[in-house]
Amino acid sequence: MSQANTQLLSWQVLQKFSKAVLEKLGVPEDDAALTADTLVAANLRGVDSHGIIRLGVYCQRIKGGGTSLTQPIEIVKETPATALMDGAARLGQVVAVKAIELAMAKAKEVGAAVVAVRNGSHLGACAYFPMLALKEDMVGLTLSNSLATMVAWGGRERVLGNNPFAVAIPAGEERPIVFDAATGTVAWGKIFVAAQKGESIPEGWVLDKEGKPTTDPKRAMEKGLMLPFGQHKGYGISLIVNILTGLLSGGAVSTEIVDMYSDFQRPQDVCYLMGALDIARFVPLSLFKKRMDDLIRKMKGSKRMEGVERIYVPGEKEFLEEEKRRKEGIPVPEAQIGEFKKMAQELGLETPF
Amino acid sequence: MSQANTQLLSWQVLQKFSKAVLEKLGVPEDDAALTADTLVAANLRGVDSHGIIRLGVYCQRIKGGGTSLTQPIEIVKETPATALMDGAARLGQVVAVKAIELAMAKAKEVGAAVVAVRNGSHLGACAYFPMLALKEDMVGLTLSNSLATMVAWGGRERVLGNNPFAVAIPAGEERPIVFDAATGTVAWGKIFVAAQKGESIPEGWVLDKEGKPTTDPKRAMEKGLMLPFGQHKGYGISLIVNILTGLLSGGAVSTEIVDMYSDFQRPQDVCYLMGALDIARFVPLSLFKKRMDDLIRKMKGSKRMEGVERIYVPGEKEFLEEEKRRKEGIPVPEAQIGEFKKMAQELGLETPF
Repeated sequence: MSQANTQLLSWQVLQKFSKAVLEKLGVPEDDAALTADTLVAANLRGVDSHGIIRLGVYCQRIKGGGTSLTQPIEIVKETPATALMDGAARLGQVVAVKAIELAMAKAKEVGAAVVAVRNGSHLGACAYFPMLALKEDMVGLTLSNSLATMVAWGGRERVLGNNPFAVAIPAGEERPIVFDAATGTVAWGKIFVAAQKGESIPEGWVLDKEGKPTTDPKRAMEKGLMLPFGQHKGYGISLIVNILTGLLSGGAVSTEIVDMYSDFQRPQDVCYLMGALDIARFVPLSLFKKRMDDLIRKMKGSKRMEGVERIYVPGEKEFLEEEKRRKEGIPVPEAQIGEFKKMAQELGLETPF
Repeated sequence: MSQANTQLLSWQVLQKFSKAVLEKLGVPEDDAALTADTLVAANLRGVDSHGIIRLGVYCQRIKGGGTSLTQPIEIVKETPATALMDGAARLGQVVAVKAIELAMAKAKEVGAAVVAVRNGSHLGACAYFPMLALKEDMVGLTLSNSLATMVAWGGRERVLGNNPFAVAIPAGEERPIVFDAATGTVAWGKIFVAAQKGESIPEGWVLDKEGKPTTDPKRAMEKGLMLPFGQHKGYGISLIVNILTGLLSGGAVSTEIVDMYSDFQRPQDVCYLMGALDIARFVPLSLFKKRMDDLIRKMKGSKRMEGVERIYVPGEKEFLEEEKRRKEGIPVPEAQIGEFKKMAQELGLETPF
């Protein structure tokens, strides 16, 4: 159902528009199609924080020169099971797909592989990339670092990104397991969405820049301090993600990463780690999938706490949302549609809205 | 300083005694030495929950036949970057060391490797194994599943283990980063230690078997329900650890894992995933280590929240504790010493206590 301040639009319309915008700015057609697909895929999955809301800033970065369009993405170094890739400041999604595909190709040969990437850009929702491994019956893994907005545990200074990581694992009759989480209490994108919708945010998500609790998303966005999920454990995981992306690749870490919203000229130098694991090298695929189904059903069928209507497995809510939104459309805030209309006008594109 | 109900004992005395006990039960000398070393290493690091407190149950499982002593540990299947290992129900530490060493040897060849292990036993503190990769300047990774004592998020039934995972990453002048965490709010071992010391546990760690909060460690241990750390995120990570250990290896998952404390006859079928990543295949080692030092110093030097005296990085507290305990001794509860004396008497060993 469409909310008062949103319109329901089909994914096809949003994808076509996003692609057209990117192409108009000089992005090669395949890259524009891919990037549009990743953004709309996030919206379909209900992850509006990482969907078309990002198109505007991607365009500003292309215009500013911080995102390059055709510089070659290079494999700097490789072994049978590893590679180091330089993303040449291209669109993050384009770099990330190349990297996970390289990891998959290597895993096809030697069973498992890891690709570290430097000089990438914001890659949207992480889940898209490990999910590409599903069709090859592999486990896919994606880590990304990001702008320093989070504290070290016990600190009150932005020294770590809300570094997300995602894992996708195929099942049989059940839907795959797709885990995708920021290492902070919440993704910043959700705070942007709340700000865009004029809603408040729950206490405990983030502190203001002085280290005081706030429920105002706009206040949170003024250099607010993200807290790690699960206290010191999320802090540790975030630090490890930073190391396995930025330090392993020789790219940026921590405060070295450029803010995509305030500097459109400089490359961001976001770094990733992509992994792929070929399941059939360990156990027969049919057995693995059958047991995945059993395990998933065991979780979902386990006794529930009072007041809990249903137990989910990671990624399930997103698959359900996707089924719904493919049929009913994606709810897009009026403010977003207004931004799109302005973009269309500036670029001389016909607006489908 | 020794507490009222503890004695300070040297790590050498504890290691020698643990080794002697295991040998007396027929464990081959090298395996006895290794297992004793891992237990005392945990105590040295302040992780008493995974140290010599476990020696008693290991012995009972050897006597019961649930832990085998000389069955061959086999490599069932391998590729250049992967292997599947069958641990033959040997002592978990013995199996785990073989598995991480195999991963390291393969990573030496092809840059990165993953070894899945089935039919293992309780392996003590995870950190020991990835730390072996540090001396080869590799990143080490260990995942282990464990007895189902945790709920699915929203559930009130034991369907997931408190499945721990550990990562070790070398630095230069600074101490390495060593992250080791259970996916529950706390390791069960800490609850055992509280029970042994007669202390209460904080609310929120665990629910009783009816799903009600409890601060009594003994009540918690009567089929209590562990909650995942970081809510749905810890649940997702625990599920993934279970899949990448038990399902990938073709071993046990969830409620299939045998309780080491109530059944000494059957193998536990604990499963692991070991990973190794050769840093020099990505970036020059000296650069990596220099940047690790910088990043660690940045965390530790960042502005602190009010009331916080010091910011740590993962593993640092354990290194500091180890330095202290190597000099001053390991505090051992009188109840533990009593148990050791009884064991010594039964086995006809001289007691050093």
